[in-house]
Amino acid sequence: MALEKQAWEKILRYLRIRDKERTDILDDLLPQDLAEQIYSLPNEEKVEIFGLLNNEEAAIILGEMELEQQAKILSLLSPKVAADILSEMPYDDMTDLLGELKEDLKNKILSYMQSDDAEEVRELLEYPKDSAGGIMTTEFIAFKETLTVKEAIKTLRELAPSAETAYYIYVVDEDEKLVGVVSLRELIIADENQILREIMRTNVVSVQVDTDQEQVAQMVQKYNFLAIPVTDKDNKLLGIITVDDIMDVIEEETTEDIYHLVGTSEVEGTTLVEAKPISIAKTRLPWLIICLLGGLFSGSVISVYEETLNAIVALAFFIPVIMDMGGNVGSQSSTVFVRGVATGEIPANKMFRYFLKEIRVGLIMGLICGLTIALAASLWQGLPILGLVVGISMFCTVTLAATIGTLVPLIFTRFGIDPAVTAGPFVTTIKDVTGLLIYFYIATVFMEYLM
Amino acid sequence: MALEKQAWEKILRYLRIRDKERTDILDDLLPQDLAEQIYSLPNEEKVEIFGLLNNEEAAIILGEMELEQQAKILSLLSPKVAADILSEMPYDDMTDLLGELKEDLKNKILSYMQSDDAEEVRELLEYPKDSAGGIMTTEFIAFKETLTVKEAIKTLRELAPSAETAYYIYVVDEDEKLVGVVSLRELIIADENQILREIMRTNVVSVQVDTDQEQVAQMVQKYNFLAIPVTDKDNKLLGIITVDDIMDVIEEETTEDIYHLVGTSEVEGTTLVEAKPISIAKTRLPWLIICLLGGLFSGSVISVYEETLNAIVALAFFIPVIMDMGGNVGSQSSTVFVRGVATGEIPANKMFRYFLKEIRVGLIMGLICGLTIALAASLWQGLPILGLVVGISMFCTVTLAATIGTLVPLIFTRFGIDPAVTAGPFVTTIKDVTGLLIYFYIATVFMEYLM
Repeated sequence: MALEKQAWEKILRYLRIRDKERTDILDDLLPQDLAEQIYSLPNEEKVEIFGLLNNEEAAIILGEMELEQQAKILSLLSPKVAADILSEMPYDDMTDLLGELKEDLKNKILSYMQSDDAEEVRELLEYPKDSAGGIMTTEFIAFKETLTVKEAIKTLRELAPSAETAYYIYVVDEDEKLVGVVSLRELIIADENQILREIMRTNVVSVQVDTDQEQVAQMVQKYNFLAIPVTDKDNKLLGIITVDDIMDVIEEETTEDIYHLVGTSEVEGTTLVEAKPISIAKTRLPWLIICLLGGLFSGSVISVYEETLNAIVALAFFIPVIMDMGGNVGSQSSTVFVRGVATGEIPANKMFRYFLKEIRVGLIMGLICGLTIALAASLWQGLPILGLVVGISMFCTVTLAATIGTLVPLIFTRFGIDPAVTAGPFVTTIKDVTGLLIYFYIATVFMEYLM
Repeated sequence: MALEKQAWEKILRYLRIRDKERTDILDDLLPQDLAEQIYSLPNEEKVEIFGLLNNEEAAIILGEMELEQQAKILSLLSPKVAADILSEMPYDDMTDLLGELKEDLKNKILSYMQSDDAEEVRELLEYPKDSAGGIMTTEFIAFKETLTVKEAIKTLRELAPSAETAYYIYVVDEDEKLVGVVSLRELIIADENQILREIMRTNVVSVQVDTDQEQVAQMVQKYNFLAIPVTDKDNKLLGIITVDDIMDVIEEETTEDIYHLVGTSEVEGTTLVEAKPISIAKTRLPWLIICLLGGLFSGSVISVYEETLNAIVALAFFIPVIMDMGGNVGSQSSTVFVRGVATGEIPANKMFRYFLKEIRVGLIMGLICGLTIALAASLWQGLPILGLVVGISMFCTVTLAATIGTLVPLIFTRFGIDPAVTAGPFVTTIKDVTGLLIYFYIATVFMEYLM
């Protein structure tokens, strides 16, 4: 889909000679492809291209870039030009972009904007970024319930709403309260003389303006909506959230969950490729330092059994395999549980039943891994008793790792803490300490046969 | 949103007395909520409810359940009833569901269906499940390019297409080849006497019938479409894929990626909560056995340095922390890289640049973790030289783990292998072996000062 270099040069020549008021370039090319190409150009050429585009085109193309990229380009342009381009964007995108800019640049651009646009944006900027209010747009279609289908279609034709907001017509009463919804499809196929109240669905699913964006995404996914209305606590319609924004939320929230599983987070305000190494290191170090302390604590278990180890040094050869296996089984169990809860595959009322099953899974895996390592250790060191000790330890470690790997995030979930954020370091330390304790305890018990 | 028990009993009473041909129950209740409630009932009650619903309602409610749940319910009903309900579903959902059933039940149900429906489904069943053909529906609106807007709207009103297929009107030439697209919104606001060719967009983004579903999802996400057309290699329009199915694909593919990161996969044909423990264990064991061998290999590194360890047993106390930190840093680096590639945050042409940055990230984290552990080890064992040895080892291990954690999936990606599937065990073993080698090598070099 990406444009080739030659085609791109042709477009540039075309942009230079054409009449800036015509918008036909976007009839032949998709804004997403243009956005990709333009962003990969050197800064001076970026500025040149944006000078050649008219405001509407510039707004559409800008809207297809990552937020950080949009902000970078705006800061290259003059505040006046930036304001003109921004005025052509939908309010939700405009707000997101302004929210990404430095305070003084934001205020300068706002001062160049029309006062009603600026007002609207200032209001939207008040909502937390990850709430329904923070991702909604205030451009939606709302009609009174007494309007006829014919009048509604006529008004729609006059308004010519933008693509992203046109697919549901919301129905409100005299107090602007949301009472129903009619899809564009239902409007088209309805009898022209009916009034909206007769054809609307009254069981409208809506979200409150302060609902968390993750919850909004789950609802849109569950009900397969193209958009969901946002209301205040008196059911007054404030805005809508469209499915394309929901897909971005899902991607963002999933990345956050995956990052949390390995104890890191995204670098704020920039992309991975452009972030400074020190900023990336900062997102990862807190968890690493906790793990470092956990690792030292695990080591202190070994120091308790120094005498045993001193007597049979070969015991040390199996520390890596016991630790690795505990680690792997533990992360499998936590990860599957956390993801299952996130997608709804493990519903709240079945978590405990799933936990009991996970223990049985652990027993099966422990048995097979225990037998394998017992055999391998016996053959390697020529000492069946050592094989027995390592095998029993492996069995206990694997079973326990599966149990703890599920139990810790389960408890966190029960107490309303996001398990993805926090379970990792605890699971690692608990399974290390218990695994090593079991191993050295069993070895000490069998010590006389091992020597 | 879930229904309360009382409300539910009221519905059941209502269903028992009402006229089965009326469909008004879905005017007041959302099918997704009903689906949740019904699935949680005992089997006999499930059958009772489906007996009380008319076929259209049953199809809508069934369509909102997970595929495995749908299959389970169908197998409770008689094949004739199942066929009647299925006939009310869109072809893509019908095909998915039939594909989930046992061969003989599937054929029995197909034999009860109308021959044209059965034919259509048999054709769709031919496409691989995870290809565009496997997830598309053949119900779409396609008009000839010479139709006027007025005629198009009139035909639409007669067809009264279902909600999921109505938002784009595809325009085809005489050979059924896709030549343009008009959104329902554009149709509404267009001049009634224009013909479709005049108002359609000609740069239609479509996918081939054999395109992988993950790629389809990426395109829909990039272009923010509500649906994407599917064509054969001659550009003949075969079907469409709608955004609600794309969201399911994204969830499915993300789960697959996350599972692969920890070396497991989903149990085919059932849900996590219902899968047998032995089936779950089977999905995890292959990777665990590979890791077990890797762990033994790491242990053999220690056995090479048996003499060193014999002389200074305290060295064993730091094996856990070195292994844990290597493991954590390695999974952070792999996970961030794999996710960055999946979301497009790390584009193909910037992978190497990102890899170089990751080395610098590793150096920074290595420095900080190395200094911390050097200090901790010196204080704990009262032996500054031991602190030095552990500190240098930690620095090398962390830096190397970050490097290897990125390099292995980078190489896999370059060779076209999905890094999420395969990188894990390799990264674990390589970082364990190198970490322990470095640690014991440095310890051996400094041995005379340690004793």
